[in-house]
Amino acid sequence: MEPRPLSDNLATKLLKRHLVSGELKPGTEIALNMEQALLQDVLGTLVMLELEAMGVERVVTNPSVQYIDHGLVQSDEIAADSHLFLKSACERFGVIYSGPGNGISHPVHMERFGVPGASLIGSDSHTVAAGSLGMLAIGAGGVEVALAMAGEPFYISCPKVFGVELTGKLPDWVSAKDVVLEMLRRHGTSGGTNCIIEYYGDGLKHLSAMDRHVIANMGAELGATTSVFPSDEAVERFLKARGRGDDYKPFARDEGCTYDREDRIDLSSLVPLIAKPQSPGNVVPVSEIAGEPVYQSYIGSSANPGYRDFAMVAEIVAGQRAAEGVSLDINPSSRQALQTLVSEGKLGSLIASGARLHQAGCNGCIGMGQAPATGRNSIRTVPRNFPGRSGTREDSVFLASPETCAASALAGVITDPRTLDMAYPQVSEPEEMPMNIAGFVFPDRSQRPELYRTKHTPSLPDFDAFPDRIEVPVLLSLGDDVSTDDIIPAGQILPIWSNVFATADHAFEQVDDTYAERAKAAEAGHAIVARKNYGQGSSRENAALVPRIMGLRVVIAESFARIHWQNLSSFGVLPLVFDGEAPVLKTGDVISIDDVRDQIEAGPQVKATVRREDGSSEELNLRHDLTPRQVEIMELGGVINWIARRRDNSIEKGAA
Amino acid sequence: MEPRPLSDNLATKLLKRHLVSGELKPGTEIALNMEQALLQDVLGTLVMLELEAMGVERVVTNPSVQYIDHGLVQSDEIAADSHLFLKSACERFGVIYSGPGNGISHPVHMERFGVPGASLIGSDSHTVAAGSLGMLAIGAGGVEVALAMAGEPFYISCPKVFGVELTGKLPDWVSAKDVVLEMLRRHGTSGGTNCIIEYYGDGLKHLSAMDRHVIANMGAELGATTSVFPSDEAVERFLKARGRGDDYKPFARDEGCTYDREDRIDLSSLVPLIAKPQSPGNVVPVSEIAGEPVYQSYIGSSANPGYRDFAMVAEIVAGQRAAEGVSLDINPSSRQALQTLVSEGKLGSLIASGARLHQAGCNGCIGMGQAPATGRNSIRTVPRNFPGRSGTREDSVFLASPETCAASALAGVITDPRTLDMAYPQVSEPEEMPMNIAGFVFPDRSQRPELYRTKHTPSLPDFDAFPDRIEVPVLLSLGDDVSTDDIIPAGQILPIWSNVFATADHAFEQVDDTYAERAKAAEAGHAIVARKNYGQGSSRENAALVPRIMGLRVVIAESFARIHWQNLSSFGVLPLVFDGEAPVLKTGDVISIDDVRDQIEAGPQVKATVRREDGSSEELNLRHDLTPRQVEIMELGGVINWIARRRDNSIEKGAA
Repeated sequence: MEPRPLSDNLATKLLKRHLVSGELKPGTEIALNMEQALLQDVLGTLVMLELEAMGVERVVTNPSVQYIDHGLVQSDEIAADSHLFLKSACERFGVIYSGPGNGISHPVHMERFGVPGASLIGSDSHTVAAGSLGMLAIGAGGVEVALAMAGEPFYISCPKVFGVELTGKLPDWVSAKDVVLEMLRRHGTSGGTNCIIEYYGDGLKHLSAMDRHVIANMGAELGATTSVFPSDEAVERFLKARGRGDDYKPFARDEGCTYDREDRIDLSSLVPLIAKPQSPGNVVPVSEIAGEPVYQSYIGSSANPGYRDFAMVAEIVAGQRAAEGVSLDINPSSRQALQTLVSEGKLGSLIASGARLHQAGCNGCIGMGQAPATGRNSIRTVPRNFPGRSGTREDSVFLASPETCAASALAGVITDPRTLDMAYPQVSEPEEMPMNIAGFVFPDRSQRPELYRTKHTPSLPDFDAFPDRIEVPVLLSLGDDVSTDDIIPAGQILPIWSNVFATADHAFEQVDDTYAERAKAAEAGHAIVARKNYGQGSSRENAALVPRIMGLRVVIAESFARIHWQNLSSFGVLPLVFDGEAPVLKTGDVISIDDVRDQIEAGPQVKATVRREDGSSEELNLRHDLTPRQVEIMELGGVINWIARRRDNSIEKGAA
Repeated sequence: MEPRPLSDNLATKLLKRHLVSGELKPGTEIALNMEQALLQDVLGTLVMLELEAMGVERVVTNPSVQYIDHGLVQSDEIAADSHLFLKSACERFGVIYSGPGNGISHPVHMERFGVPGASLIGSDSHTVAAGSLGMLAIGAGGVEVALAMAGEPFYISCPKVFGVELTGKLPDWVSAKDVVLEMLRRHGTSGGTNCIIEYYGDGLKHLSAMDRHVIANMGAELGATTSVFPSDEAVERFLKARGRGDDYKPFARDEGCTYDREDRIDLSSLVPLIAKPQSPGNVVPVSEIAGEPVYQSYIGSSANPGYRDFAMVAEIVAGQRAAEGVSLDINPSSRQALQTLVSEGKLGSLIASGARLHQAGCNGCIGMGQAPATGRNSIRTVPRNFPGRSGTREDSVFLASPETCAASALAGVITDPRTLDMAYPQVSEPEEMPMNIAGFVFPDRSQRPELYRTKHTPSLPDFDAFPDRIEVPVLLSLGDDVSTDDIIPAGQILPIWSNVFATADHAFEQVDDTYAERAKAAEAGHAIVARKNYGQGSSRENAALVPRIMGLRVVIAESFARIHWQNLSSFGVLPLVFDGEAPVLKTGDVISIDDVRDQIEAGPQVKATVRREDGSSEELNLRHDLTPRQVEIMELGGVINWIARRRDNSIEKGAA
């Protein structure tokens, strides 16, 4: 690898700005200082319990913000009780509490706390949306966020930088969502893996900061580590409109910089695009499937959160009605967006058109409401259409721009908005946005209240150290692309995620509903075997934590998804890959590894033995790719023990 | 009983207008012609399945309207699939479909279809709210509604008429909700039993039609058969504002008429009132409990559904913020109300104050969202605060006016609104309301599509005839005021109400979660014993239907709530009361009734025997109050068998 030239791209500048240790060489581990932290509620409870287990008194990231945006349905007391727990934890640890009704973390954080050049870590994969402001914003497992909040650097494999030049100007009826759908059409859902995607070029001058949010947000669907945009006039305008002009600083790439990968999009050549079920990568021009019946048109989520996106729909439907039988669901992304729709006189058109106006929050994007009827087509501005994510088991979700969703709602069939008989509405944000900070609670540094305990937020158990020898049965032998949704379901289980013991009963239930029972019975622990890309999808750390509590000691796979791989070792589970040919390992096979601690400390190679149910045995050649730091953490039983020990040591040192 | 004088009260006039058979003598059975019918979704599915079981082709009530207002959360596909089933049933049977987002049946029906002097039957206890327009509006079990839709008269025990004279004018900060809370304070939750409450007097001239809706709606909580108001200038103004002036006709009591019971309320003497947990009858002045902390302030439901109620809150909170930690939940009652809040410029104040704006519908009033945290105080404009109805097991719900709820939201503690430092806002409806009929689907008489089947809408089972002798164990021995919420929970169970078999697993689960299992084991059937007012609350017919399918044969109580009593016999369950002293009957006692069919046909007295677990026996003197028609229905196994037989007979006669 050549040293980078002196003229840096923006991603490299941001990495350098926050580099604590390591070398900016793609694939090697680097440590970054994360200045800000963002939590959402269903993962936030675990993070708070981790801070408790780590013995943290006060977080050091600033600001750290806990958003209540997922668990808003409140059909029973669990969510509301969790909100009280989180509010008390915010007060205890010094975190800003953004209450239910404030809106989705990503746009709200961008509006209120986003600062060009700063770094942000968040327990949600769409945290990357803040790259729209020239931030280095990365989604991670909750415990990684807890560590950052406790003042530890964030360790990551140094990404490549993927430069994408935008030229020209979007045609009428084509908008930011179509830009990121074009990226998905070209590169697929793993096209950004191990990359920071950096957008630059003349085309940017027609894209507002919120347009860039749309593009950066769905960088998560490209598998990218994050996306970055320069901090320029558009960012300055965005911050000024929110009374935050002082937070503006310009950040840009150096002229003459280079990239590890490159692509170019001529914005003027784009057409309205749509991702068909059931992957965001399944992109075609809208015109190709125009005429398909539509049951629901859904506007909202962090993927199209801006005032402009809702106002555009309002302008398109003004004076008309959604087609008979079409549920036009308007999910404001934030109280701020809703208030602006009122003050700018756009909300009335939406309601008059027959829209259903829902509360501000994530809502149906994560299966919390608005689930469509079985097998009926739902066209949505949301970022993901994985099977069942809408809440409906047999769903059929299409992803498109607000323009395409509005046109389809009116026609009752999927419709290319360019075929509407109207001029393209001109919608832009007002120069001054009404400021609304109702619903934020800022922590009082003079107080340190106790955590508000509920039966849904039990403290985490103690984690034992990794043993010297393991001999464990394989309880599951799985195929390719097992997702964290397969490991720990969301939907109706989501409200109990704060209780790892209750969640345990649902682990892998959609894959093999005998797993939980068998794991309990296997007292000496167990192993899981899988093929390629194990642990893909959402960053939920309970996909590692909960099986660990159930006795998982080792996962052997052909390959792992990055965040889940990290989560496994962070909770004291050993992730191993086959070194060479991958033999078939079956449920019931018993894996033995002698002197396992010595082996993994000595190097990547791990020798193991499999004993088959027929009594035969076979040697297994395995490999771990853990760094010495990760080995240390894993052997101690996970990061919670590791950080607790470091804190004890530093207290001892301080006392000496 | 003296013959009524020639000058009639309004209730008697309306009864005469719709009388098909019988004599207007309180306590005797009369048959009424019901012109209009109203269904809500979670009970509507059963009604549609009953129409199917009865062999009905096209309903005769006009209009008949199916409202989708309860099952709006859609966390999975069940509700959305049910909506499609209901839409298909509307088209098949000739019913108007009011889609999700249109709003709560009661205010929407009043606005769109209410006609002074007409009769209305509805599968929801708050159907009575339409008495505000001078209608004869009665809530009934779903199967009674199905019968009315099929063209059968509605049978009811002739109610007394309870005249309530209103004089004077409400003071500032006291509104319609306080009037009905005063009625509850004076008369309790059974104070209106077997009565039509008729409001008259000079005080009416200051109460709008929507104010009267507030009072008539919560007549259900007084146990009244219905409430009626005259059709006067206020009604004319209401209809004109909605472009329906032609539907106006005056209806009033005759001068010099008399009442079976009388009361008088001097409106000018009223103060803000509040019902404490956990009964609407637990009413005290707000000032008596002012200062109690408030966790949630909830505005909405059919009990305070008008534009004025929301606009009043908007005016009170304008320029201020809800207290920290208070969830101010705004639940618009209809798309119309929401649109008027926008067009009149009131919505912005609500949002700016930190309110959470929810979709239009019943929502948290029936445990579909907005459930408060455990044990925290929720102050609401809703009609009911039975334990657990909010969705939270250990809830603490107070009922009050919009004024009191708004004042309490600002202060964070229960607050008498008269203590606010502001002038009482003057709010009234605009003279012309924006009309919005998006979301209605009117049936096409030329088509008769098949029902859209889902696994959640299985056809009803066959019902066997009542046996000649029963010998059944008592599975539950309960106290006073068992509500239909105790029998069949709402909340998270509500979406599966359309499936009687799935609902069965949840019957009585909040009272005794072993009931379902024990009922299945008791193959020869079982009995339930209770004290006073058994089956109070919501009219849900599955509280009779589901236990019947589980083997319930007889309920013995000191007294019954009217609708549930009717529902029991309509589904072939024998409701009996103690004749004289009520002995203690325990779970495990066995009730035997010999020659039960002969006994109940011969007269009201029923002799039974109880065999105690210690082997001792005792005679029981019981009584049924069923009419010969009800006896016939019950013995046949319920009304579905009864009507099917009548239709068969009439077909045979027609063929003869």
